[in-house]
Amino acid sequence: MTTDPKANAKALRRQRFEGAWKVIRDELVEHLASEGMPSDAIEWFGKNLDYNVPGGKLNRGMSVVDSVEILKARELTEEEYFQAAVLGWCIELLQAYFLVSDDMMDGSITRRDQPCWYRVQSVGNIAINDSFMLEAAIYWLLKKHFRQSPCYVDLLEVFHETTYQTEMGQLIDLITAPEDHVDLSKFSLKKHRLIVVYKTAFYSFYLPVACAMYLCGVPPSYIPSTEPFSSTKPVHPYDVAKAILVPLGEYFQVQDDFLDYSAPPEVLGKIGTDIIDNKCSWVINTALSLVTPEQRKVLDENYGKKGKEEEQRVKDVFKAVGIEQKYAEYEQNAYETLTKLISEVPEGTKETELKQEVFTSFLNKIYKRTK
Amino acid sequence: MTTDPKANAKALRRQRFEGAWKVIRDELVEHLASEGMPSDAIEWFGKNLDYNVPGGKLNRGMSVVDSVEILKARELTEEEYFQAAVLGWCIELLQAYFLVSDDMMDGSITRRDQPCWYRVQSVGNIAINDSFMLEAAIYWLLKKHFRQSPCYVDLLEVFHETTYQTEMGQLIDLITAPEDHVDLSKFSLKKHRLIVVYKTAFYSFYLPVACAMYLCGVPPSYIPSTEPFSSTKPVHPYDVAKAILVPLGEYFQVQDDFLDYSAPPEVLGKIGTDIIDNKCSWVINTALSLVTPEQRKVLDENYGKKGKEEEQRVKDVFKAVGIEQKYAEYEQNAYETLTKLISEVPEGTKETELKQEVFTSFLNKIYKRTK
Repeated sequence: MTTDPKANAKALRRQRFEGAWKVIRDELVEHLASEGMPSDAIEWFGKNLDYNVPGGKLNRGMSVVDSVEILKARELTEEEYFQAAVLGWCIELLQAYFLVSDDMMDGSITRRDQPCWYRVQSVGNIAINDSFMLEAAIYWLLKKHFRQSPCYVDLLEVFHETTYQTEMGQLIDLITAPEDHVDLSKFSLKKHRLIVVYKTAFYSFYLPVACAMYLCGVPPSYIPSTEPFSSTKPVHPYDVAKAILVPLGEYFQVQDDFLDYSAPPEVLGKIGTDIIDNKCSWVINTALSLVTPEQRKVLDENYGKKGKEEEQRVKDVFKAVGIEQKYAEYEQNAYETLTKLISEVPEGTKETELKQEVFTSFLNKIYKRTK
Repeated sequence: MTTDPKANAKALRRQRFEGAWKVIRDELVEHLASEGMPSDAIEWFGKNLDYNVPGGKLNRGMSVVDSVEILKARELTEEEYFQAAVLGWCIELLQAYFLVSDDMMDGSITRRDQPCWYRVQSVGNIAINDSFMLEAAIYWLLKKHFRQSPCYVDLLEVFHETTYQTEMGQLIDLITAPEDHVDLSKFSLKKHRLIVVYKTAFYSFYLPVACAMYLCGVPPSYIPSTEPFSSTKPVHPYDVAKAILVPLGEYFQVQDDFLDYSAPPEVLGKIGTDIIDNKCSWVINTALSLVTPEQRKVLDENYGKKGKEEEQRVKDVFKAVGIEQKYAEYEQNAYETLTKLISEVPEGTKETELKQEVFTSFLNKIYKRTK
């Protein structure tokens, strides 16, 4: 605890969410025991869950709870909180499924300041099956907690669809930017956008809000109940949410890419490696759209190489094309566009109607972040 | 085509099922195109499907169609056939998901007489994401073809549950019998049974029949309509099916294990490697239950070793404990037990009621098979 009340509230919010995980985690482990699994398998699965699910920033998971609170416009009962938290942890399980496998595909070394799961003693390629089980756990939890809920099928479908989209994004990323074969002619801002939207935006931004909306009973379409939006024209709230959260997720990832290049490691908490890893980042793609033929040659010859000198040459080109200024323009434009989009969301007072705050709360957490 | 009418009918049956795959495969690929994926990603996904889904024996997939025909007791309309075939191909997709990843975890070299997918030029670890997409395709197909069907949720749930069970079985197998660390004290016939039931029986035997039953509208329980089973006691047909198909799947896998050891490679179509791969097979587990301390020492020292001589010493012990005789007894007993179980299934004439033939058709395909 600190003396900063805002930081305290944030810490408490996280603690409450982590408390729900303890319950969920035990349910999952006890289920394996009830299936008659041997003790070493139960223990292994528990370790898989503990190592891979709860140690991240938990932004995706907690935003389900936040969004439900905004839609209901009141504090949640214990039961409502737990239901929202289960959905939040399902998203964290989905994220763990992706991260465990992404680390294997990328040959990564560490994740969240610890060795990647597949690099842990005696795990190795068993991590593939472990990632599968993290995904399967989602559907077991949805059945256990939402089988009787009117939103059950919608929840199943939004998880299925988002999972598939994320895998499509991962496929494009993997074949566009393999770590060991640099071919900048495959890169473009259009390709970058597609990767970002599919690989990150759907599951990180649309999915948490869609889960919250389904939980609150937001229907697929309705006529807004409050002025000045009342009209006879129906709103399609899931389309509205997607139309804001997908570009918002894109903006978030562009920031991520820019911070990887520009943020001091002591602020960022890690050393950026996008240049040496041949990543299809917003920075390289923007630079490619601005370079002279001579600068392009430097990028072709030095991007994705393992040496410090090559990395510096790439950074010099980024600087020379004025990438900082381009990013400042991008960010300003993204913020204004999103603010305008959000201001046009038809609000309603019922918990089954959209609130602009669902979206501004995301945007405000992200705007001008430095880490 | 041959002059054997039975072989011809079998070939035609397979051709028809493969014809349905062409349609399904194109639907899946066109969906990616409609999502705006780049052409190289669409092509990659098509190759993933073509390489990994249709080249097996297709027993699991075709048994959905067979079971539907038996339940309806008539030829299927084109539409009915295609619906059953979609479910059959969903099971083949599930199988492909497991096989692509199992081969990576086992470090296998070939599958279905071609290099394993992860060993194909430029695929490598991208195969992990490719396996994910094979699984995701299942739920996209179920939504496309069954969204409006009363059995939609049941189908989703039986695929979820069976997937999880198979992954549990794979986990026990991986930690009980890692290829590089032999510890026969971890083995037992009980452990073998658990692995086999979870890793193979649920998805290979119960899942196809359960899909057929859901498609035909078999309810969770009913009072049988025909003598001699009519009574006021309700039948729980999915429990009945599971109670037969799980031991049937166990029997199938025990055969598989025994044939790996005993069948001539020219009959089996491959060279058995269970002994050198440290597999937790029925053969080693049965031997372990019969050996003298001296024979146990030979097994401890030679099982799971890469040399031909070590393998021969293990085989000599298997022979010495009379494994052939034990297997003959096992098979006879399994056949009789299953026959009795099947004979007690309460039959009905409606398509929503069980038929014993659903189960005998499986048993007859398996009994005394030599490959």
